[in-house]
Amino acid sequence: MAVYTHLGAEELARLIAEYDVGQLVSAKGIAEGVSNSNWLVETTQGRFILTMYERRIDTGDLPFFLGLLDHLAERDCPVPATIHDRSGGLYRLIDGKAVALIEFLPGVSPNAPTPAQARAVGAALAEVHLAAREFPLDRTDDLAPRNTLAILERCGSSALASIDADLPRALEKGREVVAAWPDDLPSSVIHSDLFPDNVLMLGEQVTGMIDFYFACNGSMAYDLAVTHAAWCFDKRGERFDAAIGEALMDGYCDVRPLGDAERAALPLLAQGACLRFVASRAEDWLDTPADALVTRKDPMDFVRRWDFYVENGARVFA
Amino acid sequence: MAVYTHLGAEELARLIAEYDVGQLVSAKGIAEGVSNSNWLVETTQGRFILTMYERRIDTGDLPFFLGLLDHLAERDCPVPATIHDRSGGLYRLIDGKAVALIEFLPGVSPNAPTPAQARAVGAALAEVHLAAREFPLDRTDDLAPRNTLAILERCGSSALASIDADLPRALEKGREVVAAWPDDLPSSVIHSDLFPDNVLMLGEQVTGMIDFYFACNGSMAYDLAVTHAAWCFDKRGERFDAAIGEALMDGYCDVRPLGDAERAALPLLAQGACLRFVASRAEDWLDTPADALVTRKDPMDFVRRWDFYVENGARVFA
Repeated sequence: MAVYTHLGAEELARLIAEYDVGQLVSAKGIAEGVSNSNWLVETTQGRFILTMYERRIDTGDLPFFLGLLDHLAERDCPVPATIHDRSGGLYRLIDGKAVALIEFLPGVSPNAPTPAQARAVGAALAEVHLAAREFPLDRTDDLAPRNTLAILERCGSSALASIDADLPRALEKGREVVAAWPDDLPSSVIHSDLFPDNVLMLGEQVTGMIDFYFACNGSMAYDLAVTHAAWCFDKRGERFDAAIGEALMDGYCDVRPLGDAERAALPLLAQGACLRFVASRAEDWLDTPADALVTRKDPMDFVRRWDFYVENGARVFA
Repeated sequence: MAVYTHLGAEELARLIAEYDVGQLVSAKGIAEGVSNSNWLVETTQGRFILTMYERRIDTGDLPFFLGLLDHLAERDCPVPATIHDRSGGLYRLIDGKAVALIEFLPGVSPNAPTPAQARAVGAALAEVHLAAREFPLDRTDDLAPRNTLAILERCGSSALASIDADLPRALEKGREVVAAWPDDLPSSVIHSDLFPDNVLMLGEQVTGMIDFYFACNGSMAYDLAVTHAAWCFDKRGERFDAAIGEALMDGYCDVRPLGDAERAALPLLAQGACLRFVASRAEDWLDTPADALVTRKDPMDFVRRWDFYVENGARVFA
């Protein structure tokens, strides 16, 4: 949540002139994106999001990420299209950093979603899965369970215990998840990070799905499980909201019914989703000084969800 | 440069409903303001800046700051008007914090201003000074030279030397400035902090003067001196741009000619401006851990400007 790079007005105006979008009218750095800088840019022709890729994102992945937005937007998914520059380019370089201009979409992220909103999100996710099956580029899932387990193993049991005495048991639980992981479920390109922050809504309508920078090839049911873990609990993972969970599943299945193997796998897939967020949060926690201005996210929030899925997954996904 | 508070979509929608501005369409936290959180809010009727006052700003000062915006906007100064709520209120409270809705103005802050831009800024500042003379509320200048000298004295010579070996001499120089300070120059309400960041422009036109949270009663020539120190040098204060300086002065004097006493005082007033930024930056530097994510601003940038004014002030302001 930051703007890491200062872009002067003159530099911005020169950049905007490389696109057929009119003259620069306004630009505000916005507090979104953890590894990118973003500006809300207004021109005489419209509004756009300008993203500068600061770190974590490999420029070699940009044709995948930005091409995916175009692919989905063309198929009427509520996804911002990439604005191409005058020579057709998906991104440009400023001082060696890649920048892309992306369509601005209206809507706000729900903070306390209603079942009707969760249903709409489920349906929108299924539409993305169906539309993305024809997307021609590939990207490996760096955060598949065996990889996130490896992150957790690198943190090590004693460092994990320094965060919470109950955290090291995620190692053993993670090994069980990886050992049982199914590799043959129907796949597509998946969002992999569809938290409410990454969905824009107006009332009960999904107006935007954003931040596809974890998108990769993967199991569609796993993406649904990630979304389930992201939407159906309070922040700390202490309270499951059954109405939200049912609405999300119903919305998804209305558009894309799940196969038997997918449905049977969901309790495990949801545990894999929890493993992933436990691992990334534990790693960030250990990398971030306690007195840093950045708020560290507690990995235990997803240990609690994980325990919930172990105990209730079969019932919830029946 | 941050958003300190999370405001959920539902909470934002409830807040916006208290104003006659239509329905919430979009809200993005923006990376502006060091002591406030700000959102760029779009409704079905327009765009607005929502500001939440986090710290430093005394709620008792809000009628002055927000009323001043209205006063100046009514008099055609390029200043955002305050949007009043349905009961006429200038601000509202959310969880005990004051929030205000302010007009959005187009424009971008120049990074490398041209003389034509500096001339326009000088003229706009003079127009604000003239329009603000009738503003009925008062606010004392907390950062008058005797107060900023006191800040520097509290830092102490050895702490100042820990920042830069050459910094402690600002104490003696500051005492000289305070001793010679004129208290009888023509006054109005002054902006006091008109750095390029606080000016929005489209081409050579000033479309917005923003961030009036240092505004107070004070000498108009002093405000011009602050603006001179803020606009006419490179960031480090190593290079004075004479063309920018002349254009700024010309633009100001075209609208409001300076009296003899004001003109004679300018070299000293400019030193007072430098004292102020040296003091506030030194205090912030000593308060900010070296490894904090916030970039510390070097007080020496304004020691160099100060030295320039001591040596060249009489010539520059002749």
